[in-house]
Amino acid sequence: MRAYDIIYKKREGQKLSRAEIEFLIDGYVEGEIPDYQISAWAMAVYFQSMDAEETADLTMIMAESGDMIDLSQIKGKKVDKHSTGGVGDTTTLILAPLVASAGIPVAKMSGRGLGHTGGTIDKLHSIADFNTALNLDRFFDNVNQHGIAVVGQSGNLTPADKKLYALRDVTATVESIPLIASSIMSKKIAGGADAIMLDVKTGSGAFMKDLKEAKKLAKAMVAIGREIGRDTAAYITDMSQPLGYAVGNALEVKEAIETLKGRGAADLRELCLELGAGMLELAGQAEDHAEAKAILREKLNNGQALAKLKQMISAQEGNPAVIDDYSLFPTAEKKVEIKAQKDGYIKELDALKVGLAAMLLGAGRENKESEIDLAVGVELKKKIADRVTKGDTLALLHVNDEKNLAEAKAKLTAAYSYSQTKVKAKDLIYEKIT
Amino acid sequence: MRAYDIIYKKREGQKLSRAEIEFLIDGYVEGEIPDYQISAWAMAVYFQSMDAEETADLTMIMAESGDMIDLSQIKGKKVDKHSTGGVGDTTTLILAPLVASAGIPVAKMSGRGLGHTGGTIDKLHSIADFNTALNLDRFFDNVNQHGIAVVGQSGNLTPADKKLYALRDVTATVESIPLIASSIMSKKIAGGADAIMLDVKTGSGAFMKDLKEAKKLAKAMVAIGREIGRDTAAYITDMSQPLGYAVGNALEVKEAIETLKGRGAADLRELCLELGAGMLELAGQAEDHAEAKAILREKLNNGQALAKLKQMISAQEGNPAVIDDYSLFPTAEKKVEIKAQKDGYIKELDALKVGLAAMLLGAGRENKESEIDLAVGVELKKKIADRVTKGDTLALLHVNDEKNLAEAKAKLTAAYSYSQTKVKAKDLIYEKIT
Repeated sequence: MRAYDIIYKKREGQKLSRAEIEFLIDGYVEGEIPDYQISAWAMAVYFQSMDAEETADLTMIMAESGDMIDLSQIKGKKVDKHSTGGVGDTTTLILAPLVASAGIPVAKMSGRGLGHTGGTIDKLHSIADFNTALNLDRFFDNVNQHGIAVVGQSGNLTPADKKLYALRDVTATVESIPLIASSIMSKKIAGGADAIMLDVKTGSGAFMKDLKEAKKLAKAMVAIGREIGRDTAAYITDMSQPLGYAVGNALEVKEAIETLKGRGAADLRELCLELGAGMLELAGQAEDHAEAKAILREKLNNGQALAKLKQMISAQEGNPAVIDDYSLFPTAEKKVEIKAQKDGYIKELDALKVGLAAMLLGAGRENKESEIDLAVGVELKKKIADRVTKGDTLALLHVNDEKNLAEAKAKLTAAYSYSQTKVKAKDLIYEKIT
Repeated sequence: MRAYDIIYKKREGQKLSRAEIEFLIDGYVEGEIPDYQISAWAMAVYFQSMDAEETADLTMIMAESGDMIDLSQIKGKKVDKHSTGGVGDTTTLILAPLVASAGIPVAKMSGRGLGHTGGTIDKLHSIADFNTALNLDRFFDNVNQHGIAVVGQSGNLTPADKKLYALRDVTATVESIPLIASSIMSKKIAGGADAIMLDVKTGSGAFMKDLKEAKKLAKAMVAIGREIGRDTAAYITDMSQPLGYAVGNALEVKEAIETLKGRGAADLRELCLELGAGMLELAGQAEDHAEAKAILREKLNNGQALAKLKQMISAQEGNPAVIDDYSLFPTAEKKVEIKAQKDGYIKELDALKVGLAAMLLGAGRENKESEIDLAVGVELKKKIADRVTKGDTLALLHVNDEKNLAEAKAKLTAAYSYSQTKVKAKDLIYEKIT
């Protein structure tokens, strides 16, 4: 077998066998196949795509390229959830305790944020002393004992995906549906999930700006799940405006707690109920979607979901008092108002611009080495369809370092656009793919 | 400027500016842009192509990446000729003295053979002591004094093309019309040509198997010539069967001498007259094509073309006696006959199979380091449309090393196919593109 022939075959639009993909990927990880052949192959895949079987093969080969977490020590069907990332996307912090309180074991490995999209691990670090670096034994123990643990990725998970992604990132070959789908799914498989609930975001603040592309990605990932025998479902959800009102690490944790207290943003609550109900269905713990949603609503209302979060914080060495005393969170020195420029209705609230404004204040990482400020970010007061009068507060910037404040203000101001006539609220959930 | 953005732009089918192409190619040659970005870009070019202006820009950037031969010391309009390569393609050895005898200065740098296609420099080495390594001063002197010199490439010509071609060769990105066209033309420009006559071969023994693709390549190269102000014309000619009867180094030189003596193969003679007439037209040394051809026919008939070859051989330290005494050429120990398998007409004579048979005997290089045997090769006796009776000699193998003889015999036998009904002779020249 020669890498040249495999590149040529894909260039000509032909289907690659599992053995060929394995030869290419394993050879790349082992340093036997040079990156210039892999980048040419990735560009050929960009143009010629891969079918469901090829994509599933690539997924499994990447999953098996490093450690495979064995969750069999944990009782029950492990349903993992993955979001393709967005602005103000605090769902994991709500969903994890919510479904855990309903009996789904949550053994979750999460990532750090990059660019304008946040990461669960960063957010959890705004709870003093919270430990996201449990070793595997303690991780398993916590899940078996409390039904929940959320930690950072450890060990050598999917080295093939890491190496391939880094190469795609500098060769303009990221935007390929089968390559994106296999990258995401390989990490979930290596993480040990029995079933996978996907939240594919679409809109300006999402990786997939376009609804059609988001649908393709969702379908590709559900198809991988089918090929490899892992129940997988996907929601396609809106990320044209931020989810909820908070954008920034500590701000989002507070919003998550509010939601678990039965308050908080309606869109965030609704999305968590939908995704959580889907997870209960995948776990086989509800007759139908309506029953699943009713169960979760009850867990929110009776405080059991909130209690589960408290339990997790304690079990991972964090201070559970934060739940009742928000002053224990890192807090910014200063709040700066953004005011409505005219009367009318909010027509658009560009999620990307909001995310970039928060990043300019220090809430997000420009590159993997950037330091972030957990206290800062954006607190939205008005979202799409809200009526405003000139001078109303649209949003608050939570600021420590004023270096980029002017730029952040300009970004956030530009994120809002107005209409003189009434505006229909955005759909939150576009479609469910199973 | 970032390489990533340039790859992305080409991936999206957008036109690159000269500055962008320069950034990419110069950066690559200087080692600042890594090969994995260039191979991804080349694959994007494979799918999205480049327009005439981009292709011309790439040509000039590659031409200017190394030494540029300055032929201004040589009087007259320098018309270079280039063949895309074929089997039994002996045209340079005939054309060079033919047009030189008609007053066109021939200052030609030629290449060595690779694979089943031969190279002029190898062929010239079958003339004892022939020196193809003249320094530039002597090269210019010879052309000014005798009107002709043929040498191997020296100096650092088109390093960008060399580096890019080597990368394309292992990343399945060779078969891109703008990349092939710019590669060929950059070498001609760096070689100092004022005008360029191209012989684009098509058929099984050619690089371009397909007539449509050959036409595209010819048009792309003529367009480059127009963009950069070098008169360029292209013939598209047949390489479905070998040109002439001889395939192999010394065998082809003998055939070239025969042609210059007014004998030899009709197809070879006709092609040389056509290409040569085109060169006279490009040089402005004939009123029209008919006049140009008449001039050259006269030079063949009156022996001046042959005399010019003799003069060149002497001027480059070779033994001119070879012209009258073929026994001075390296000669194979043994001739092996290939016989007709049945009665009928020759329907096909696959040039690639003939070329591979000759290579198996040692006439061609498998890789750049291979040693070749100048004496061996194939002498065809029958070509397409010839009538044969079972047992007739179709061809002779000229053999020294018998290691691959059985395989070579099988290849050559398989090169012939038969028809029971009369077969029309192949067109030699499909089209002229100007």
